[in-house]
Amino acid sequence: MDLLVIGGSDAGVTAALRARELAPDVEVTVVVADEYPNYSICGIPYHVSGDVPDWRSLAHRTRADLEATGMRLRLNETAVSIDPAAHVVQTRSSDGDLRQIGYDKLIIATGAVPVRPPIQGLDQLGAADGVHVLHSMDDTFALTDDLDKRRPATAAIIGAGYIGVEMAEALSARGLRVTVFEQFSQVLPNTLDPALAKLVETELVGHGVEVLTGVSVGSVVRDYVPGGVLLSCSDSSTRRADVVLVVTGVRPETSLAAASGAGLGVRGAIIVDERMRTSVPDVYAAGDCVHTHHRLLDSPVYLPLGTTAHKQGRVAGENAIGGDAAFAGVCSTQVVKVFDTVVAATGFRDSAARDAGFAPLTVAGVFDDHKAYYPGSTPVHVAITGDRKTGRLLGAQLVGRLGAEISKRVDTFATAITYVASVADVGDLDLSYTPPLGSPYDAVQLATQAWTRAVRSPTRHVNPREGRPSSAL
Amino acid sequence: MDLLVIGGSDAGVTAALRARELAPDVEVTVVVADEYPNYSICGIPYHVSGDVPDWRSLAHRTRADLEATGMRLRLNETAVSIDPAAHVVQTRSSDGDLRQIGYDKLIIATGAVPVRPPIQGLDQLGAADGVHVLHSMDDTFALTDDLDKRRPATAAIIGAGYIGVEMAEALSARGLRVTVFEQFSQVLPNTLDPALAKLVETELVGHGVEVLTGVSVGSVVRDYVPGGVLLSCSDSSTRRADVVLVVTGVRPETSLAAASGAGLGVRGAIIVDERMRTSVPDVYAAGDCVHTHHRLLDSPVYLPLGTTAHKQGRVAGENAIGGDAAFAGVCSTQVVKVFDTVVAATGFRDSAARDAGFAPLTVAGVFDDHKAYYPGSTPVHVAITGDRKTGRLLGAQLVGRLGAEISKRVDTFATAITYVASVADVGDLDLSYTPPLGSPYDAVQLATQAWTRAVRSPTRHVNPREGRPSSAL
Repeated sequence: MDLLVIGGSDAGVTAALRARELAPDVEVTVVVADEYPNYSICGIPYHVSGDVPDWRSLAHRTRADLEATGMRLRLNETAVSIDPAAHVVQTRSSDGDLRQIGYDKLIIATGAVPVRPPIQGLDQLGAADGVHVLHSMDDTFALTDDLDKRRPATAAIIGAGYIGVEMAEALSARGLRVTVFEQFSQVLPNTLDPALAKLVETELVGHGVEVLTGVSVGSVVRDYVPGGVLLSCSDSSTRRADVVLVVTGVRPETSLAAASGAGLGVRGAIIVDERMRTSVPDVYAAGDCVHTHHRLLDSPVYLPLGTTAHKQGRVAGENAIGGDAAFAGVCSTQVVKVFDTVVAATGFRDSAARDAGFAPLTVAGVFDDHKAYYPGSTPVHVAITGDRKTGRLLGAQLVGRLGAEISKRVDTFATAITYVASVADVGDLDLSYTPPLGSPYDAVQLATQAWTRAVRSPTRHVNPREGRPSSAL
Repeated sequence: MDLLVIGGSDAGVTAALRARELAPDVEVTVVVADEYPNYSICGIPYHVSGDVPDWRSLAHRTRADLEATGMRLRLNETAVSIDPAAHVVQTRSSDGDLRQIGYDKLIIATGAVPVRPPIQGLDQLGAADGVHVLHSMDDTFALTDDLDKRRPATAAIIGAGYIGVEMAEALSARGLRVTVFEQFSQVLPNTLDPALAKLVETELVGHGVEVLTGVSVGSVVRDYVPGGVLLSCSDSSTRRADVVLVVTGVRPETSLAAASGAGLGVRGAIIVDERMRTSVPDVYAAGDCVHTHHRLLDSPVYLPLGTTAHKQGRVAGENAIGGDAAFAGVCSTQVVKVFDTVVAATGFRDSAARDAGFAPLTVAGVFDDHKAYYPGSTPVHVAITGDRKTGRLLGAQLVGRLGAEISKRVDTFATAITYVASVADVGDLDLSYTPPLGSPYDAVQLATQAWTRAVRSPTRHVNPREGRPSSAL
């Protein structure tokens, strides 16, 4: 049996690895558009920052590791068409050679491509002009080469999503003066409520980053002073930067899948079932190119993340070789480090919950990460979203200091959401406690107790005499 | 209505606070045997170590905080008898005065007392001889006074449970040379499998602690050189220590409850239902004096912990004033810091699982706490216990470095066990990921995947041709 995988990033490689693990007799071929299979895209900011000096370290596994599993890698080879009836994929190598590759089962893992926001002039500028996107290793090399050769002093980052804020840290670490432009009125607009986002903004500003929220960039043009870009902003200012980084999100790369007849759905992502099957026989898809089941929703969403790509790839790989795995869905769990602050969230905030038909209430509070008497205690900001009617836990947002175990605290909420816990149930969980690392009721539980108090009327009905035996009266 | 609480530690105070919160019209009186209500007993090692210089900081709440809620505190007053028919408790104050206190509802939260192991001569020695237990603030003062005044150079700690290892760190921090005696063949025998316990032993030894496992102390006697105690050990050695600390566990303090007619069960702990009601009308009990429902077991266990005491106290307080709360049970989740190592566990290990009728398999592995390419990655040792027949998750043990979010990682397992997850389900959880703080599959998931691989036959049945349409053949 021949399994062909198109795409050498998280979903594609995980699928190939899973297939090789479960069925060593299956021939697995992975077509990779560049020569960097299985690179940790999430790690790029840490190479740019200098934390990871050698870009080769970003490989989850080396080419040799992958080939040692018995899979075949076709590097620098791009799939150009799929003939689903003939079970053949046509590819083009970097020197232009065309090739036909037959398959019994095919997995499409073509990922996503950066969105180019509607900024006038942006389509005329590229890496040679100091205007960068950041999604592939080639994008990374273009940026780091630019930083190394031109030694730019200033950077404009367009977009304050999680990659935007990570890159603000990375470029600051490289010594650049960074300005972040965010058209919404806060940083991390897709992740945090405004009050919590303000903490992140303060962290950025405290580390010398200029943060312009509620400001969009209308146009970009090469400065007449060479080596700079002029940005015309919605606040009527014109600003200059030596380097511009456009990180305003991604869209699914589905041209190949669509041409093969695969159905597309939300945000243009490939429609798959929980077995990761597309609408085309013998063709699976996984990762940033497909839509995703959300555990709190009936209809799928587009939510590209490395964690999800791994899980979907694993399911696709198992099923392609005859297994029966199902993708369980996501809670939209995320974590991002911003200098010495960690931001994590899972599930829904108020607005998304309301859109989904819930009756949400969000209650925020601040709790010690561990007993205040033990040295080094720091505040953990937690906002809990729950359904007023059913008491169901819908989401949590956390912001705290690096070292305060924020990222694993959100995992407790993600697990509870997965099992349809109520907000009050979280308070009953038998969580760990030692004074240097927590509290008898952990911060996550103090937060849910605050929500429960807020949702109840202050004079809850209690009947103290109930059940008292008459002999004792 | 009058609510009387006997006991001013975690369970008693939490019960009183909950009652005052829900029913401000209820009169709440708390009888406290000493003058230190609501002290964090779990924090004592950190006061002894010097991390918490002022013992007053160990109070979860001050006396003024407590009284501000409207509860009445009767300090230095010991309950000596209960007359359940008359609904009266007799107390004795520190100067011998007897007093009758009537109640409508009573909550017994008398806690636990240290076990005195069967060591010859131990009952003839006390704090004045340099032989200490450590459970109350008075015990703490006796120890710290001894350390301050005599400036002892060496300490023997009998028992390598979690308090034993915490105190080994604390006394080392005070400059003492510490020897730990553990009759079982490993440290933390109730918490960890031997291979993981070895890591903790290495940590202790690396910090200058002498660890004698498989060695019990047969007798203790005052040395003829003043200020020392001689310990005769099962390895035929006689060792001398300036200070001896006996920390071999606790037993429930139930004499008062038993005399009032309350039924006692496992390990002599007070029998309560999930509403925290004892067998005596209008009498509740909570905390270290009661037995505890374990979520993996049908029959109760004795498992005294501060987290549990808080939860049980909260339930007792709510129900005593007419509420209808239920104690949800524990998973035996624990965490302990030992120098720069953190140990956490939840659920069952192999032996306990087998005793409970499961068919356990435990699989251990070592995983990076975060992506190895990002600086500061450390190994997380994880052992997963699951049921071979059903695949159910039964327990997890983790050992890693301080800062590797060990304590919150165990919480994910505790939450999953609570919801009767399978081991494989953990791999499907949407946990958070960023390279500085985790991996696309977190260490907890890589560990469960290792378990799943181990439990399956290496050539799992797959049928790659299944479902392939005939047209494609």
